[in-house]
Amino acid sequence: MKKIVVAGEILVEIMADTAGNGFRAPLALTGPYPSGAPAIFIDQVARMGQPCGIISMVGNDDFGRMNTERLAADGVDISAICIDHERPTGSAFVRYRADGSRDFVFNIRHSACGTLPKSDTVDALLASAHHLHVMGSSLSSPEIIAFNIDAARAICAKGGTVSFDPNLRKEILDAPGMGEAMQAILSATDIFLPSGDEITLLTKAKDEAGAVAELLARGIRAIVHKQGSTGVAYHDAAGRRFVPAFKVQEVDPTGAGDCFGGAFTALWLRGEDIDRALTLAAAAGALAVTERGPMEGAATLDNIRAFAASQGRFV
Amino acid sequence: MKKIVVAGEILVEIMADTAGNGFRAPLALTGPYPSGAPAIFIDQVARMGQPCGIISMVGNDDFGRMNTERLAADGVDISAICIDHERPTGSAFVRYRADGSRDFVFNIRHSACGTLPKSDTVDALLASAHHLHVMGSSLSSPEIIAFNIDAARAICAKGGTVSFDPNLRKEILDAPGMGEAMQAILSATDIFLPSGDEITLLTKAKDEAGAVAELLARGIRAIVHKQGSTGVAYHDAAGRRFVPAFKVQEVDPTGAGDCFGGAFTALWLRGEDIDRALTLAAAAGALAVTERGPMEGAATLDNIRAFAASQGRFV
Repeated sequence: MKKIVVAGEILVEIMADTAGNGFRAPLALTGPYPSGAPAIFIDQVARMGQPCGIISMVGNDDFGRMNTERLAADGVDISAICIDHERPTGSAFVRYRADGSRDFVFNIRHSACGTLPKSDTVDALLASAHHLHVMGSSLSSPEIIAFNIDAARAICAKGGTVSFDPNLRKEILDAPGMGEAMQAILSATDIFLPSGDEITLLTKAKDEAGAVAELLARGIRAIVHKQGSTGVAYHDAAGRRFVPAFKVQEVDPTGAGDCFGGAFTALWLRGEDIDRALTLAAAAGALAVTERGPMEGAATLDNIRAFAASQGRFV
Repeated sequence: MKKIVVAGEILVEIMADTAGNGFRAPLALTGPYPSGAPAIFIDQVARMGQPCGIISMVGNDDFGRMNTERLAADGVDISAICIDHERPTGSAFVRYRADGSRDFVFNIRHSACGTLPKSDTVDALLASAHHLHVMGSSLSSPEIIAFNIDAARAICAKGGTVSFDPNLRKEILDAPGMGEAMQAILSATDIFLPSGDEITLLTKAKDEAGAVAELLARGIRAIVHKQGSTGVAYHDAAGRRFVPAFKVQEVDPTGAGDCFGGAFTALWLRGEDIDRALTLAAAAGALAVTERGPMEGAATLDNIRAFAASQGRFV
């Protein structure tokens, strides 16, 4: 089985219990929940039974210990999670507004996960990897960008593969060097996992068909275009297919795209039939939104398959 | 009326709703509450009707805005609270254990309030001050220590006064230069406000009577020895007196010592009779523990006086 590695932020999430605007008075909250987009992704990969690991930093505090223990319990290789004895584990306070949009208070860039560890265990984990996943949200500093570009090139050079979820806002692309960095990652990418408008974020073409043609022409093997509760469009050299989303009662949408990506990437690496991989990934994404907490809905492959069957979709 | 200034941390506090050990699983929490020892102290000063201000940094986030608005609403001069556009407002997660001890997860040193602002408004606030309060918990970096020593000497040089609450743990004193820094602050101190064992923390003498003699001999005018729910011992050139604490139902002890100190310092600067000042300060400390949240129990002088009278102590 091929091993998947990701480098990026481990956070706790603190959720407001009531909908409303921001955090300007004492509120009922629940937390800490394990979080961080790359951590959610890799936890879902582990729940699929795939070998995997994460490169990250946590503080010497309960928030870091909770995340590390959770990832280890779910099967993630935690040998390259290092402890920063100075800075605390990263955190995100989240409150949903009545209209479904969200207010945040973040502590990420100046938290433990604002830098990547330098350690023999990092080198060893990378050396053992067959596949690198790059999460756009993690590309928060020149150092982390350079690390991911180097790691992607090294994986490619030894015959491995790369997946890339841009997971970033347009404004971030305007930061100096960011556009070039994204293009460097994209040049090494086998599986591209944009959501919604992100399909045209890194292309010259500004319409979907043009963007797909351009991405395939530059060597991307699979374009997995996530469209939330609608479904997912998939493009490769053989053409386009579409798999509708599962209908579920949404409790907490955070982490759905990361669970989708983790499930799909693991199945793709096993050579799973594409329609089956997309359907199971869609089921993983649907299950993710049925639980409160970003990582709480990450399900095992057996449970994902059982859920899909319960919805009349046997895979 | 004399103006009191303090420089130090502004935080939010997030409190666990249930007693227990640490933060290693999602819990019911309540927050953010305005917090930070110097912020609680200065809020109590403002509630006494005394002119006052705080020098600090907050993040460009709701936690910073909530604290700043609260302090301004209570009458604190916020002109020297500056916004750090990079780092978040400091935070402290607090959970009480069944035995009354506490577990924390802090983000202070690498938060906005980990450094002090440099600004004309800081200089202007210091220039307008008649009294400086130094909070030991704020002395977290060589820069902040140097700032407080310089400010204390400048206040003394123009005929102002200094109060000093050591509010620190023994281990911190072992940090390089920390002992010397404490001695420099103590040399400028008029009112010394230790709690419990802190009475001998900075003296050669290791018993209370010896420590008191030593502190008075080096020019400290008033030693206010806080003893929690027992009461407060007071020492000056005229001798010793003791004021018992008020008996209240304790909801949340955090901030009691800071409210005591803020109330006493304001009254001392007004030349209030010492027994009355101690009794009112004890009432302020008692009221502080009756509300959940570190700053929520800071009461106005009228309310403090009414509470003391309701307990049969008319001042």
